[in-house]
Amino acid sequence: MRSDALVAALDIGGTKIAGGLVDRAGTLLHEVQVPTPAKAEAAQVLGAVRAVLDLLVAHEGWRAVDRVGVGSAGPVDTVAGTVSPVNIPAWRDYPLVARMAAHPAVAVGRLRVVLGGDAVAMTAAEHWAGAARGFSHALCLVVSTGVGAGLVLHGEVHAGATGNAGHLGHITVDLDGDPCPCGSRGCLERVASGTAIAAWASGHGWRPEGDDTSAAAVAASARAGDPVALAAFDRAGRALAAGIAATATLVELEAAILGGGVLRAGELLLDPLRRHLRTYAALPFTRGIQILPAALGTRAGLVGAAALALRPIPAGEPELTPLRRDVP
Amino acid sequence: MRSDALVAALDIGGTKIAGGLVDRAGTLLHEVQVPTPAKAEAAQVLGAVRAVLDLLVAHEGWRAVDRVGVGSAGPVDTVAGTVSPVNIPAWRDYPLVARMAAHPAVAVGRLRVVLGGDAVAMTAAEHWAGAARGFSHALCLVVSTGVGAGLVLHGEVHAGATGNAGHLGHITVDLDGDPCPCGSRGCLERVASGTAIAAWASGHGWRPEGDDTSAAAVAASARAGDPVALAAFDRAGRALAAGIAATATLVELEAAILGGGVLRAGELLLDPLRRHLRTYAALPFTRGIQILPAALGTRAGLVGAAALALRPIPAGEPELTPLRRDVP
Repeated sequence: MRSDALVAALDIGGTKIAGGLVDRAGTLLHEVQVPTPAKAEAAQVLGAVRAVLDLLVAHEGWRAVDRVGVGSAGPVDTVAGTVSPVNIPAWRDYPLVARMAAHPAVAVGRLRVVLGGDAVAMTAAEHWAGAARGFSHALCLVVSTGVGAGLVLHGEVHAGATGNAGHLGHITVDLDGDPCPCGSRGCLERVASGTAIAAWASGHGWRPEGDDTSAAAVAASARAGDPVALAAFDRAGRALAAGIAATATLVELEAAILGGGVLRAGELLLDPLRRHLRTYAALPFTRGIQILPAALGTRAGLVGAAALALRPIPAGEPELTPLRRDVP
Repeated sequence: MRSDALVAALDIGGTKIAGGLVDRAGTLLHEVQVPTPAKAEAAQVLGAVRAVLDLLVAHEGWRAVDRVGVGSAGPVDTVAGTVSPVNIPAWRDYPLVARMAAHPAVAVGRLRVVLGGDAVAMTAAEHWAGAARGFSHALCLVVSTGVGAGLVLHGEVHAGATGNAGHLGHITVDLDGDPCPCGSRGCLERVASGTAIAAWASGHGWRPEGDDTSAAAVAASARAGDPVALAAFDRAGRALAAGIAATATLVELEAAILGGGVLRAGELLLDPLRRHLRTYAALPFTRGIQILPAALGTRAGLVGAAALALRPIPAGEPELTPLRRDVP
């Protein structure tokens, strides 16, 4: 493996499709992005992906690219090479890997295309070059309009058999809780996401100063001492604590790394989270989990897609996207 | 490794301490047991362990023993070689591995002593020679007076950094649920264990035919159509479904294997479990989990202790009990 080789990385979300070139140290050298035509037909969404690839191919760094990594909004199926992003309705079991491999610049270079879920990619990034570096067993969370997460076990990203492991936002923390659009009920995301924080506050009498009814506005009120706004963050911190504790109880964790827009609330969220963690993480082996802020911010998607493309295939796990093996 | 070599296996619980000799095919060849003096002083409990070892040493098969495996009620610390069984109060951070290694017959043979938690041992047994054989990603549960469990990931038992992974009975499935003796609240065990089934039924007006107020008596009433007894099993099945779904959502599972005394209720528990699993396991990659009965019954503790003693140390995991390496 040439040490100056680069990974072409893509990060596909419901709002934008980002592309970048990432070196072997995890540095993002070049970045482009286009809006996602999320409500368009499947071929048009692919057109946006191909446009991002075209922009990367046009960069002088493309000559050093030896593989392609792509992180996508999920669910994904890394065995089949398909994606079904909740926010891109036209893509259902969409053969993204095969379509990307058919791009002329990818096909001519016989470049391997490796797919992962976006939260798994973020986790790979934080473990490679961010706040999870050095931990053998860690959970990385993004608390935003939803709650995404991924796992590091035994020093490796645990992607799961089909690349979807770590979906912490959809574990049930309240057996009798509200139905979730996923089909289950009482999901952590229904309590702890930014959307849920804002909805709960509004439903309990909180009124914003202006037109902004987002979690950021709830945070502003909480800083000013509004008791309902404070309670909304306490409740979210409590659900996150229960979810982190459940994960530690199931697999044993050294650390939980938190990122995403809602973390801009800082101690408004982290203080109740740490406090409730002392209740929910009661068994001796679950105590002492380090709670740390994510380090890579919005770069994590691209850096993580590159990390997934570079990782060796763990024993017992199918090759993520068995398109073709590296050409030496 | 001689193919006719044997493992001396011990299974330490709050009621009894069992010992056995296990061959390389996972067959339990010889079994002994003594009552656990659970409320006695630490040295007396050790005396019972040493008595079990003495009984094994007296068997002709001992000459073929090349290692010792011990599964213990938890929590355990496989790095320190210590145990703190909830039901044996005199043992707190008790150096069980060092004490067992000091037994003359173990010391003279320089036999390696490998410690694991009892639920992790049961999981290792079912994966080696029982119902989890052939699965790469599985959860094995024991539903009894408590709820214990262990994980298989990537075809290997996932014991966790200190040997306690898979403590499914103590994940929170109800944020506002009852306090649990573990210190947390809303733990799955507080809803789904045999103890919880019987307590909930009694608290909701169920009365047994005779003096038996156990989950088995609740099951008898349920079979006769008692609506409260049926509701108690439905509620337990629902909590187990949420817990299995949470585990599948976090790590991806192919199968969940269920054993333990409460499973004698059969479809009274399994029917609601399967039904509620269709709600809680909603994401595509969590559907289709196979629910299977455990195969080894009460042998699982000893067979599993042997399995843990035989397994290679996974990459990234500290050697379970680094007493000494095998002598060739």
